[in-house]
Amino acid sequence: MLHEADLAPAATAVFTAVLTEGPLSRVALARRLDLSSAAVTKGARPLIELGYLEELAATERTGPGAGRPASPLAVRADREFFVGVKITGDELIGVVCDLRAEIRTSAHRRLPTTDVDQVLTSLGELVDELLDGGYRARTHRLGLAVSGDVDYSTGLVRYSPFLRWRDVRLRERAEKITGLTVTVENDVKALTTAEHWFGEGVGVESFALVTVGAGIGCGLVVGGRLVSGAHGVAGEIGHIGIDANGPDCHCGGRGCVEAIAGADAIVREARRAAGRPELTLQDAVALARAGDAPIGAVFDRAGDAIGAGIAAVANLVGPARIVVSGEGLSAYDLFEPRIRVSFQRQAFGAASECPLSIRPLSFEQWARGAATVSIKALVAA
Amino acid sequence: MLHEADLAPAATAVFTAVLTEGPLSRVALARRLDLSSAAVTKGARPLIELGYLEELAATERTGPGAGRPASPLAVRADREFFVGVKITGDELIGVVCDLRAEIRTSAHRRLPTTDVDQVLTSLGELVDELLDGGYRARTHRLGLAVSGDVDYSTGLVRYSPFLRWRDVRLRERAEKITGLTVTVENDVKALTTAEHWFGEGVGVESFALVTVGAGIGCGLVVGGRLVSGAHGVAGEIGHIGIDANGPDCHCGGRGCVEAIAGADAIVREARRAAGRPELTLQDAVALARAGDAPIGAVFDRAGDAIGAGIAAVANLVGPARIVVSGEGLSAYDLFEPRIRVSFQRQAFGAASECPLSIRPLSFEQWARGAATVSIKALVAA
Repeated sequence: MLHEADLAPAATAVFTAVLTEGPLSRVALARRLDLSSAAVTKGARPLIELGYLEELAATERTGPGAGRPASPLAVRADREFFVGVKITGDELIGVVCDLRAEIRTSAHRRLPTTDVDQVLTSLGELVDELLDGGYRARTHRLGLAVSGDVDYSTGLVRYSPFLRWRDVRLRERAEKITGLTVTVENDVKALTTAEHWFGEGVGVESFALVTVGAGIGCGLVVGGRLVSGAHGVAGEIGHIGIDANGPDCHCGGRGCVEAIAGADAIVREARRAAGRPELTLQDAVALARAGDAPIGAVFDRAGDAIGAGIAAVANLVGPARIVVSGEGLSAYDLFEPRIRVSFQRQAFGAASECPLSIRPLSFEQWARGAATVSIKALVAA
Repeated sequence: MLHEADLAPAATAVFTAVLTEGPLSRVALARRLDLSSAAVTKGARPLIELGYLEELAATERTGPGAGRPASPLAVRADREFFVGVKITGDELIGVVCDLRAEIRTSAHRRLPTTDVDQVLTSLGELVDELLDGGYRARTHRLGLAVSGDVDYSTGLVRYSPFLRWRDVRLRERAEKITGLTVTVENDVKALTTAEHWFGEGVGVESFALVTVGAGIGCGLVVGGRLVSGAHGVAGEIGHIGIDANGPDCHCGGRGCVEAIAGADAIVREARRAAGRPELTLQDAVALARAGDAPIGAVFDRAGDAIGAGIAAVANLVGPARIVVSGEGLSAYDLFEPRIRVSFQRQAFGAASECPLSIRPLSFEQWARGAATVSIKALVAA
C-alpha cells in the first residue's frame, strides 16, 4: 500500500500526469512537467516498483526527430481499487472503481432513516458487499460524497440539509466501521474532481460543472485548482439572482436560479399551471413531453434561468468549458434547448464560445465522483 | 537598471514579499516563503547591491525565542520611479509613482481626438512633463491602462470602445515615443493589480474589485492570480443578467447590471422619471441628493442591481473581500446603502460575511493602477 508520504513531488507529478493524460513517454513527461529526464526516471521508479505504473512495449518511432524507441508509461488500472459511496436522504449508492476511475461494480442500499448510526451500519454492509466481489485485497480507500457543507480536511459534515446532519465526524466514524482510509467531500466537488481528473476537465486550466436536480450547484476549477471560497461558500450558482421580481427563495434571496429551476420550484409551478395539487415531478415531465403547453412553459422558464446562471459563470470566471449535468437532467430534453438559447443571449462577447456539454448523470456517477476523491488523495495528497 | 532576467526565483519571491508586506526580517521571510535562511540571504543580496532593498537598523528582540537582533529588509521606495497613464476617451491622466506605488506627482492632458497618432504625441508630451519633475534619471518604465480588450502579453489593444481603437500595437508605439519599457493592461485589471499588491488585496488568496462608472467591471484574483478567462472574457459583472424582464443591454443580453446601473442607463431612466430629456448625470445626482423621490428610485434600482451582481461574485467565487469603487462612485452616498442591502439579501449563507469596501476612486488612482502593472513587471516577471 502506498502512503502519500512515500512520494516525492516529482513522483506525484509523474503519477498525476500518467493517470490523467497517459500513457506518456518519459520524454513527453519531462517536457510536460518541465523536469529533467533524470527527475522523471527517478520519480517513476518507486511507482513502477510498487506496481502502479508499467512500461508499455516500445513503439518504434519514425519521422523527424526519431531516436530511441519510446516506452510509454501507463497506469496499471487494477493495481488498486477504490470504493465510492454517495449518501442521499433515502439511499446509499456505492461503486468500486479502479485506479483509472472506471466503475467495476456497483450496489445500492435503501436507507429507512438518516440516523447517523443506522446510516453507518448500512454503509459498513454496503462496503462489505462491494468488496466481496473480489476487490477486498486490493482496496484500501473509501470516498464518501454528501451534499451540503463538508470539510474535506477534517472529514466533518458540518451541515447536510437532506440528511438533517449537523457536525457529524463522518471520516472518523466510517474509518472505524470499514477499516479503510476514508475521504469525505461535498458531492458536487467530488463530481467536479471526477471531471477534472478523468473527464472533460482534463488538461484545461479552468472549467465548471453545473449540477441540476433538487438543488442547483456548481463546482469551479480555476488555475487548475478547485475553488473553495474564503468564507466557505463557492459555486452557489443556484443562488444567483436572475430575476429581480422573481419568487422568493428559501435562502432569503429573490429570483434565485434554484427558486425557478430547482425540482421543488418546478413541481410547484407545474401544479399551479395544471391546477392539480397532487402532480409529481414525473407527471410534469410526462405532460411536458406530451406537449402540454403551460407545463412546457414551466420547464422553459427553468431552462432560461439555468442558462442565465451558467452565463454568469462564463462572464465572471471564463472557464474553458462547462459541463451541465445532474439527476435533474434526466429530463434534459426539456431543458437543453432553452439552456443553450438563454446562455447564448446572456454570455458576453467571446464568453459565448465556451462549449457547454449538457448530459444526464446517474447516481453511480456521483458515487464514482466520491471514489475519485480517494484516488486523488492517494496520488496527489 | 534591473532586468527581470537578472532575478532568480528566490530573489523574485523575496522582492515581492518585502515590497507588498515588508519590512520583514530574513527569518520571517524564510518562514513565509518556505525557503532556507541561506536562500533568502542569497536572494536578497543582488537586490541590496542594486539598491532596491536595504537593511533597517537592527531592533533588539526580547521574550521567548529572542536570538540575534533582527535587521528587517525594507524597500527603498525612491530607488526607481514608474510612470502610469490612464487613457480615456477625452483625457490622459498621468502619475509618477515610487517603488511602493505612492503617487509623487500627477498631470493631465485633454485629448481633442482619439486618433492614435495624436494620442501618442500627447502621451509623449505628458510623460516628458512628468519626468521633468526630477524623475527622469531613475525612471525606466511606463504603464498604460486602457478600457476594453487588451492583450498584456503583446501590448496590443484589440478593441477599446471608448477610444474606438482596434488592433493598436500600443506597447510598441509607446516605447518608440517615450524610450521607456512599456506595459499595457486593461484598466480594471490594472486597478486590481494595485489593490492586490498595495491595497486591500495584500496577503489574501482571493479578492474582487468592482468598478462602477460608464461601465461596470470586475477584476478577480483567485488562488493569488488574476483571472483572465479561457476565452478572453472574465470579470464581466456588468453583463450578469439580474432581471429577466429588465431592459435590453447593448451586449445583446437582458437585464444586465450595466443596463440598469451603468451611467447611460441612469441618465436615461432619470430623464424619463423627470420628463426632462436634457438632464445630465450631474443633474440627476444633484436632484437625488436634494430628495427627489423618482430620481432617487433610479439610483436605488442601480444600487440594487450592483448589489445583486456583487452577491453573484461572492456566491460563485467566494473572495476574501470585495472592493467597490470607480468614478461612478463619486455619487456613492446614493448607491452605498442599497448596494449593501441587496448584497446581504442575495449573498448565500456565509458569503454574506465577505467584507465590502465601498469607496470612490479618482482618475489618478486608475493611473496609479497602470504604474503598479509596470512595478509588477519589474519585480515578478
